[in-house]
Amino acid sequence: MTLEEKVAQLQSVPPRWMDVEDESEMTAKAQLLDEDGNINSDNAADLLEDGIGHFTRLGGGGSLAPQEAADVTEALQEHLIEETRLGIPAIPHEECLSGYMGPKGTTYPQGMGIASTWDPDAVEEMSTQIREQLRAIGAHHALSPLFDVARDPRWGRTEETFGEDPYLVAKMGSAFVDGLQGDDPEEGISATLKHFAAHAVCEGGKNRSTVQLGERELREVHLFPFEAAVQETDADSVMNAYHDIDGVPCTSDEWLLTDVLRGEWGFDGNVVSDYFSVRLLKDEHQVAPTIYDAAIQAVEAGLDVELPQIKAYQHLVEAVENGDVAEETIDTAARRVLKQKIEKGLLEDPGVDPDRVEEAFGPEKNREYARKLARESVTLLKNDDDLLPLEGEESVAVLGPKADAPSGQLGDYAYAAHYPEAEVNREIVTPLDAMQDRLGDDVEYVEGCTTTGPDTDEIDAAVDAAAEADVAVAFVGTRSAIALSDDDEGIEQVPDLPTSGEGADVTDLELPGVQQELVEAVNDTDTPLVVVQVSGKAHSIEWIDQHVPAVLHAWLPGEEGGNGIADVLLGEHNPSGRLPISVPKDVGQLPVYYSRRPNSRNERHVYVDEDPLYSFGHGLSYTDFEYSDVSLASEEVPTTGTIEASVTVENTGDVAGHEVVQVYTHQRWPSQARPVQELRAFERVHLEPGESATVTAEISATQLAFHDHDMNLVVEPGEYELRVGSSAADIEAAADFEVVGDTRKLARSSRAYFSETDVE
Amino acid sequence: MTLEEKVAQLQSVPPRWMDVEDESEMTAKAQLLDEDGNINSDNAADLLEDGIGHFTRLGGGGSLAPQEAADVTEALQEHLIEETRLGIPAIPHEECLSGYMGPKGTTYPQGMGIASTWDPDAVEEMSTQIREQLRAIGAHHALSPLFDVARDPRWGRTEETFGEDPYLVAKMGSAFVDGLQGDDPEEGISATLKHFAAHAVCEGGKNRSTVQLGERELREVHLFPFEAAVQETDADSVMNAYHDIDGVPCTSDEWLLTDVLRGEWGFDGNVVSDYFSVRLLKDEHQVAPTIYDAAIQAVEAGLDVELPQIKAYQHLVEAVENGDVAEETIDTAARRVLKQKIEKGLLEDPGVDPDRVEEAFGPEKNREYARKLARESVTLLKNDDDLLPLEGEESVAVLGPKADAPSGQLGDYAYAAHYPEAEVNREIVTPLDAMQDRLGDDVEYVEGCTTTGPDTDEIDAAVDAAAEADVAVAFVGTRSAIALSDDDEGIEQVPDLPTSGEGADVTDLELPGVQQELVEAVNDTDTPLVVVQVSGKAHSIEWIDQHVPAVLHAWLPGEEGGNGIADVLLGEHNPSGRLPISVPKDVGQLPVYYSRRPNSRNERHVYVDEDPLYSFGHGLSYTDFEYSDVSLASEEVPTTGTIEASVTVENTGDVAGHEVVQVYTHQRWPSQARPVQELRAFERVHLEPGESATVTAEISATQLAFHDHDMNLVVEPGEYELRVGSSAADIEAAADFEVVGDTRKLARSSRAYFSETDVE
Repeated sequence: MTLEEKVAQLQSVPPRWMDVEDESEMTAKAQLLDEDGNINSDNAADLLEDGIGHFTRLGGGGSLAPQEAADVTEALQEHLIEETRLGIPAIPHEECLSGYMGPKGTTYPQGMGIASTWDPDAVEEMSTQIREQLRAIGAHHALSPLFDVARDPRWGRTEETFGEDPYLVAKMGSAFVDGLQGDDPEEGISATLKHFAAHAVCEGGKNRSTVQLGERELREVHLFPFEAAVQETDADSVMNAYHDIDGVPCTSDEWLLTDVLRGEWGFDGNVVSDYFSVRLLKDEHQVAPTIYDAAIQAVEAGLDVELPQIKAYQHLVEAVENGDVAEETIDTAARRVLKQKIEKGLLEDPGVDPDRVEEAFGPEKNREYARKLARESVTLLKNDDDLLPLEGEESVAVLGPKADAPSGQLGDYAYAAHYPEAEVNREIVTPLDAMQDRLGDDVEYVEGCTTTGPDTDEIDAAVDAAAEADVAVAFVGTRSAIALSDDDEGIEQVPDLPTSGEGADVTDLELPGVQQELVEAVNDTDTPLVVVQVSGKAHSIEWIDQHVPAVLHAWLPGEEGGNGIADVLLGEHNPSGRLPISVPKDVGQLPVYYSRRPNSRNERHVYVDEDPLYSFGHGLSYTDFEYSDVSLASEEVPTTGTIEASVTVENTGDVAGHEVVQVYTHQRWPSQARPVQELRAFERVHLEPGESATVTAEISATQLAFHDHDMNLVVEPGEYELRVGSSAADIEAAADFEVVGDTRKLARSSRAYFSETDVE
Repeated sequence: MTLEEKVAQLQSVPPRWMDVEDESEMTAKAQLLDEDGNINSDNAADLLEDGIGHFTRLGGGGSLAPQEAADVTEALQEHLIEETRLGIPAIPHEECLSGYMGPKGTTYPQGMGIASTWDPDAVEEMSTQIREQLRAIGAHHALSPLFDVARDPRWGRTEETFGEDPYLVAKMGSAFVDGLQGDDPEEGISATLKHFAAHAVCEGGKNRSTVQLGERELREVHLFPFEAAVQETDADSVMNAYHDIDGVPCTSDEWLLTDVLRGEWGFDGNVVSDYFSVRLLKDEHQVAPTIYDAAIQAVEAGLDVELPQIKAYQHLVEAVENGDVAEETIDTAARRVLKQKIEKGLLEDPGVDPDRVEEAFGPEKNREYARKLARESVTLLKNDDDLLPLEGEESVAVLGPKADAPSGQLGDYAYAAHYPEAEVNREIVTPLDAMQDRLGDDVEYVEGCTTTGPDTDEIDAAVDAAAEADVAVAFVGTRSAIALSDDDEGIEQVPDLPTSGEGADVTDLELPGVQQELVEAVNDTDTPLVVVQVSGKAHSIEWIDQHVPAVLHAWLPGEEGGNGIADVLLGEHNPSGRLPISVPKDVGQLPVYYSRRPNSRNERHVYVDEDPLYSFGHGLSYTDFEYSDVSLASEEVPTTGTIEASVTVENTGDVAGHEVVQVYTHQRWPSQARPVQELRAFERVHLEPGESATVTAEISATQLAFHDHDMNLVVEPGEYELRVGSSAADIEAAADFEVVGDTRKLARSSRAYFSETDVE
C-alpha cells in the first residue's frame, strides 16, 4: 500500500460535507451525494481516489430511505472495488443508540429508559433487532452504545447513558454490544464503546468541559464499564471523548488510548474519533497550533480513525514525509482498520444486499418489542392511596406539552427527533393517541403550555378540563435534540427548545418553562393528579413529590411510548422500571449518586439533607414483594473464592409483577475511603400473586477489588456486608461475610467483572 | 524522655472538654478549668502528668478575658514547669483569621474581604497587630490562615479564604504568615497553613466531602499556595484537611503530609490535625476500625500533633508497646514539637507576660486599622449614572437585615459572631450606626425582614421608608457562624440561621429568606436603590444586577464595618476592592473561576452563558483609569530568564483612588490543556486626579512552569501573551513575548513563586 492508501484507511467520508469551518485547512469539500441523494461521480472519484476507511452515516446522515441507503452504499462500495487500485470496501457506520438513526428505523426508548428495565437480555434483543436494520442498509459499524457513568444530570447527554452505576452501565452496555455484534462478525455490526473516558462528569455538566478526577475514581467508576466490556464482549471499537482529564485531552492521551486500553486490557480493535475531536485539539484545547499537529498528536496517542470527514488526518501523508510521524504509526492504525474489514468479510464481499430492506423495515417491524421496552422502562415513583392503576372507566383529562408531542418523546440521536417533519418517519404513538384509543370519548385533552415557552394562557383551560374529569394526567418534561427540517435548514422547527440531549446542558433541573405552574394549578383542583415525566433525565421535582399523589417517570419512550405509558396507567402492565440514577432535590445538591464515600454521603447542606429525592434503584409496583433473609453458602470466603448468596422473594399482593432484586456489598474498614455500598448483582424476576422465587448470586471475591494507596488492584481480607434491596435506600435483607487470607494483589484484567445470577 | 512523655507532646488539652462522643474510648474527660475559669488543680495534675504538647484555645475557647487568659496560661505553664518531670511548657494555640478569636480581640474583615484589598502589605500589618494581642495572652501558635483555593461558593468556608486564584491566595496568605510570625520566633506566633489540601473543592460544596482531583490540578491550583508559602515564608505549621482526595483521607495521606510537604518542599515544621480529624478516620472515612488504628495511620503518615484534645493519640503508647508503630515514628513527631518549643524559647521562658494585656487590648486598639481594611475591602460592583457616592445631604432609608446586625457583620471564627451576647465584646459599628452618626435625622431605618426568616410583614414599611427618602440603601446578605450563649448552651441565640461559615454549606446562592422580595419591593419605588451585600460569599444576584442601579459587596467587614461601608457610600473613601472570586449567575453554572481551561471556559449552558455575573478582579471606582500599552524589556525571554513588563496607569477622573493593576499570562499552544490565563502579578496603586504611575512587574520564566504529560515541572518555550487588566475580563493592554530555548525541566521547589513589582 502506498502511504496515501494507508492514510486514506484512517479517514471517513460523509454523504454531505458536515463542517465548513476552517476552509483554508481543508482540501476536500466536495459533496459525495447531490441533493437528491445521487452519487456525484466526479466527487466520489476525487474523495475516494486512494480508498477510504469509513463511510459516515450514508443512510442516517444522508436522510436516505433504507432502500436508497442500501443502493447508494452498494454503489459506493462497488466504486471502491472497481475504481480504486486496491479495491478495498469501506466500513459504513451509523448511529443507533435508541435504534437505527435513519429514516424508518425503529425507535426504542432512549438509554436511560432502557437502563430502567434492568434487563440485559431485553437490551440484547433490542440491539439484535437494530443490527438487522443496519445490516440491511449495508452498514457494518455503529457508534453506540455509551459506557459513560452519569453523575451530573446537568449534562444533556445523561439521557443517553445507562445511569450512574458502573456495574449497571457495564451490564447493560455489554448486552447492547453482544446483540449488535452478534455471533458472526460478517453479519454483525461493530459496536463502539464510548466516550472514552469519563465524559459524563465534565465540569459544570457542560459537554466538553474539563474533567477533574483522580486515577482511582477514574479507574473504579468511569473506566470500569469499558474494561468490563473489553473483557466480556468482543467489542470492535472504542471512541475517544472530547474533553480533557486533568489537562490531558482524551483525543491525544496515549496513556488512556494505548497504555490502558491496549496494554492493560488487551483491546485489539480500533479507536475512532468522536466527530471533529481531532481538530478540537487545535480549536478548543489549543494544544495543537494547526490541524497538522493535531493529527500527529492523535494518531501517536493511538487514535486510529478520524471521523466524520476528511480533515486533520489527510495531513498525515505530509507528516510522514516530513519525518514528523513514523510510518510505522500509520501502519499500525491502518492495520487495525484492515483487520476489522477482514474480520467482517469486506474484502470478499462488501455485504450490501438491498433485497433485505423490505423485510427489515416494515412499519410494524419490531414495534411490539419497542412497546415492551417502553412499558418496562416506565418507573413508578409515587402512588399514594393506590391512585394507579386507573380502572379504565374514569373520564381522564390528558394535559401537558408531552402528551402529544411525537418527536418530543424520542431521545437525541433518534432520527425523527431531529427531523420531525420527514415523510419517511415511522408512526409515533403518543400518550394522547394511546389513551384516546382505549378510552375514546372519556379523554379530554388540553396541552396547557409548551415545554419551554412562557405562555400561561392555556393553563386555565387545563384546570377546567381537570376539574371536570375523574382523574387528570399531566405529561411534562423536556425536549431533547435540536429539530431540523429535512434539508438541514431551519433549526428549531418545533417550538420547544431542547433542554436535554447533546449540547443542551442546563443550570437547573426543574421542569422548563411554565410546566411547574401548570402542575400546581391542576393539582389545586379536587381531581386527583398523576404526573408523568416524559424526559430523559432526572428532574428535581420536590414540590411535585410533596403534593401530587402519583408520579411516573416514562423517560423518552420511543415510537411506542404512548402505548407503553397507557399500559402502565391502566394496569395492563404492572410498572417494573427502577431508577438507574439518583434524583436530586435540587441542582445545588449535586452530586447525589448512591455510592458516595461515607463523608460525601453523610454530610448535609443547610436546608437540604444528604438524601436524594428518589434513590437509585427506586421504583414502585402495583403489588408487594417480601424478602426472606439472605442465605450465604459460607460466611468465610477466601480472596480467591466466590460469595454465594441467595434470597427468596414473594409476591404477596394481588397482581403479577416484576421485582428487581438488587445486591450490594459494603466493606467495613477498607484501607481507602470507599463507596458506602456498591451494586454487585441484580436480577429482574416476574412473579404471579403468591408466587415466590429464589434468586442466587455468585459474586467473585475479585469483584470486591479496589485500588490501594499505591494503585495496586487488591482484594482485601476483612469484614463485609452483603445487602439485598429493592433500591439502594431500601435494603430488605443483609448478611455479614468475611474475606479471609492475605491481601491479594490482582493483575490487571484478571478479575471477574460480572456476577452470575440465577432464579429458581 | 519516657514514651508517655513523648506521646504527651503530640497532644493538646482544651480548657473544657469539647467532645463527649465515644466516651468508651476516652480515658480523660476532665475539665481543665471550672465554670468560673479557674484551674481545677486535680484535673490539671492528671491531664498534664507527662507534660503536654499544646494548650487548645485557653483564651478564646475558654471565653476568658485577656487578663484572665494570660493569668491562666501563666499558671498552667508554671504547673508544667514545676510539677512535671521534664518541666516543658506547652504551646498555647488560638484561632485568629479575622483577628484573635477571643474576648476583646480586634475583629477585622473576614478572609474574603481581606483578599478584596489585593494588598499584601495591609494583611501583614493586620496579622502583626493580631500577633501582639495573641502574644499578650501567652499564646504562641495560631491555626490561621487558610491557603484553600475557593472554587465552589456553596462551601460555607469560602468566606474564610482569599479567593479562587492560587497566586492571590499565596500572596495574601504568605503576607498573613509573615506578619503573624514576625522576625523574632520568640515574639512571633507560629502560623498554620491550612487546610492541607484542596479543602475548598469538596464534592457538593460540603465541608468534609470527598475531593475529586487529578494530580496536575491538585499541584498547580491547590498545592501551589502551600508550596509557595513553605518556600517564601518560615511558616511553622501545617494543618491537614478533613476530607479525602480520590479516596485517601488527608489525615492519613503519607504522600501528601510527608513525601510532598517534607520530601519535595523541605518543610521542617510540624503538622497539626484539624480538630477531631484523627478520630474521623474511624467515624467518617471508616478506614480505621478503632481510634487506636486511626492514631497509628495518622502519625505514620506524618501528622505530628492531634488537636484539640486527648483522644486517639493517647493510644500511641500502647501502639508502640504492642509493636504496631515504631518508637522512632513517635520520636520524629515529638522532636518536631520540641524543636518548635526550642525555637520559640519556651524551654527558657514560657513567654507569658500579663502586663502586656492592657496595652494590647484597649477598646480603640487597632480600631483604625480595622476600619481601613473594612473600607478598602468594599467592592463596588455596579454604579449606574454615578448614583454613588452620596452627597451626604440626602435623606436616606437604611433597610435590610444586615444594616444593624453587629454579630452578623463578622465572619465565622470571630469571637463575637459566636458569642454575640458576651459582655467582653468590643464595640461593633454597624452600617446603621455609621450612617446615623454622619447623617443624623436624615436616616430612617426599617429592617424589613430577617436574614433567613419567612416573614414579609415589615416589607411594606421598608417600601414606605424608601418612598419617602432621597435614596434607599438595602443591606442584605447571610449570617455566618452559629451563635452560642456564653455558657455554650442555647445554640442559635440570634434569629438568623447561618448560611455561611463552617458547616453551613448551601445548595443555592440566592439571598436567603425573603431578602430578594425586600429588594424587589423597594426597587419598585421611584427612589434610587443601593444594594450592599454584607456576606462573606458570592451570591447569584442576576436580578439585582439587572434592575438595581448600584451594588456593593462589603463582605463581612468586622467591627468597623459600618464605618468602612459609610466611608464608601459617602465618598470619603473611593472604593478600591476587587473581587477575589468570580460571581456565578446561578448555582447550576458552577464552577465559573476565571482560569478555566479553554473548553470549560467556552462551553455554555442552555439559557445561561459561560461568563460569570462579575469577573474575578472586577471592582469599580469613583474615578477612571487609563492604561498605556505594555512595554516589555525584551520580547524574547530564555527559559532561565525574566519577563520585565511595565505599564503606565493614569487617573483621568476627578477624585483620588486606587487601581489594582492585574497582570495575567496566556500561553499559546502549550503541550497540555491549560487555563486560558493566569494571574502572575498585581499591584495596588494610589493615584491623585491626573496622576499617573508606571507599574513594573518582573516575572520569572519559572513562574510559567506547569506539569507536562509525565508530571514533570517544565517551562515550555513558545509564544505567550502578557495581559494587563483591571479584571480578568477587562484586559486593558497586552503584549506578545516568546520563551526561547529548549523545554526546561525544573526540580521541585526550584522555581520562583512570586513576581517582583514596583511602582514609580
